[in-house]
Amino acid sequence: MVIEKLIDGLLINDRRSISRSISISENDDSEASEILKKIYKKIGKAYRIGITGPPGAGKSTITNQLTKLLRTKKFKVGIIAVDPTSPFTGGALLGDRVRMTEIGNDEGVFIRSMATRGSLGGLSKKAVDAADILDASGFDFIIMETVGVGQSELDIAQNADTTIVVLVPESGDSVQAMKAGLMEIADFFVLNKSDRPGAQQAFTALKTILMMREHTETSWLPNIIKTVAAEGKGIKDIFEEINRHRDFMINSELFYLKRQRQAKVRIKEIVEDKLKKKLWNSSIEESLDSSLEKVVLGNLSPYHIAENILEKFKKHIH
Amino acid sequence: MVIEKLIDGLLINDRRSISRSISISENDDSEASEILKKIYKKIGKAYRIGITGPPGAGKSTITNQLTKLLRTKKFKVGIIAVDPTSPFTGGALLGDRVRMTEIGNDEGVFIRSMATRGSLGGLSKKAVDAADILDASGFDFIIMETVGVGQSELDIAQNADTTIVVLVPESGDSVQAMKAGLMEIADFFVLNKSDRPGAQQAFTALKTILMMREHTETSWLPNIIKTVAAEGKGIKDIFEEINRHRDFMINSELFYLKRQRQAKVRIKEIVEDKLKKKLWNSSIEESLDSSLEKVVLGNLSPYHIAENILEKFKKHIH
Repeated sequence: MVIEKLIDGLLINDRRSISRSISISENDDSEASEILKKIYKKIGKAYRIGITGPPGAGKSTITNQLTKLLRTKKFKVGIIAVDPTSPFTGGALLGDRVRMTEIGNDEGVFIRSMATRGSLGGLSKKAVDAADILDASGFDFIIMETVGVGQSELDIAQNADTTIVVLVPESGDSVQAMKAGLMEIADFFVLNKSDRPGAQQAFTALKTILMMREHTETSWLPNIIKTVAAEGKGIKDIFEEINRHRDFMINSELFYLKRQRQAKVRIKEIVEDKLKKKLWNSSIEESLDSSLEKVVLGNLSPYHIAENILEKFKKHIH
Repeated sequence: MVIEKLIDGLLINDRRSISRSISISENDDSEASEILKKIYKKIGKAYRIGITGPPGAGKSTITNQLTKLLRTKKFKVGIIAVDPTSPFTGGALLGDRVRMTEIGNDEGVFIRSMATRGSLGGLSKKAVDAADILDASGFDFIIMETVGVGQSELDIAQNADTTIVVLVPESGDSVQAMKAGLMEIADFFVLNKSDRPGAQQAFTALKTILMMREHTETSWLPNIIKTVAAEGKGIKDIFEEINRHRDFMINSELFYLKRQRQAKVRIKEIVEDKLKKKLWNSSIEESLDSSLEKVVLGNLSPYHIAENILEKFKKHIH
């Protein structure tokens, strides 16, 4: 069978098999189940790094530089880059092409871009499926890079063993990050472009916010690493901080608790996805469409129609 | 019954009844259904304006100024402001307080802030429920203001009759807006802080992007309105553009088609919310929790567990 061959291929790190497996898991839910159910015993060895932050903070540059560093240590690196999509081009705006020139020709690196647009819901499930495929394929590190702007992007970043939030010294950036919910998910911060004016103030502001923070269950305190990623400065510090965090997590058993929490979120998403697919079959879609005029004219409330649909679904779920 | 009294109150624009009805619809799904099902015939008269854009673009200022203008014309204005929440304070970071000093003491204005944090999913449903309650309460205009950063924020902004995207002349802002999916949803743009250096270039860049855009089904072309909202400049132009768009929509019958599309999205969200609530009952949650260790140890895949849960749910849905 085709799926069997793909799985054999991806388990020996065959690039085409990996690429096709990810495409299948992106597009088809039932085949995604089939692949993921078959490779499961091979998953869990890769270390997963989430990199997020506001647009323009330099996340791609850091991902590229960190990848180069990991390559000098002979680690294989898989990258999942979740890019917001342009409505005009239909493709990822900052897609694979920019990256390709830097690290894409390296056989030990696999890069996959995913677009946020058009995948209403299910994005973080797809990204984690892809990470699992890369994990089973033998990559040592998996970097999941997302723009920290929406809930699903945050979900993806949190689905890592170590989550890094990248900020820049621009005024108010740390306040914006706080508003976007980025502060809570950071295992440590990277203050990129820290050669710019205002870097020291931004560092102090961020430090202050971190100190204001309520005491958490762990004794881990997020550090702030200063970088100038475009010049490669501070990348080694990032790698060391990742290792420090990894050691802390594993020694305190938080590592396993975190992975359990992530598994829970993920299973819930898979269940809900499958249930939604069952729900919106063509007959229920049709009955919904035919009721819309009544709603707009004020003859029936959306809640009435929703309840009718649920009743219909209950009868058909078996 | 309490709900009956609340509904009587909100239908005569009693502020406490309105406020309590919105709180109930935020917190309790079944009572939300009850309220919304009872006021439905009173809904549909208010004109809904969505205002969105990146953080710091001046959305609140524009909302406040536009509200003041609408008040000089004796229109009653309801405002739903969706703010990202700080993880530290637990409340909306830019909450009601800032606004209150400007327009909050006006009896013809009702302001409600909603926080994005903690309401995983269901946020746009809640915001539209609140808009419906304000609509039934007799407000002439309802402004739904959101930060254009996540999918649910975009959903809310799109749930308006006229959607305005606010940008500022900062370099690259229009490109970021494009990436965030804001370009597609704009009925027109506001280029705020247009007294800043670079405003003319930003205007030209935005115009260029709009001209590159594929031809759509309608002959409506989004305009760009220049404002300096902090000084009240251009607010009248915004109001005129809203009216122009409203006339166009109603004359071309797109108005009703748009409301039908919105009703569809909304009903789907209500159905999915109700189904999720049925799904995650305590017995299914427990069986999920007890399986997590197996997933992390690699003994079972998340897909296996998801399928088991679905089977269990099918048996219990009746």
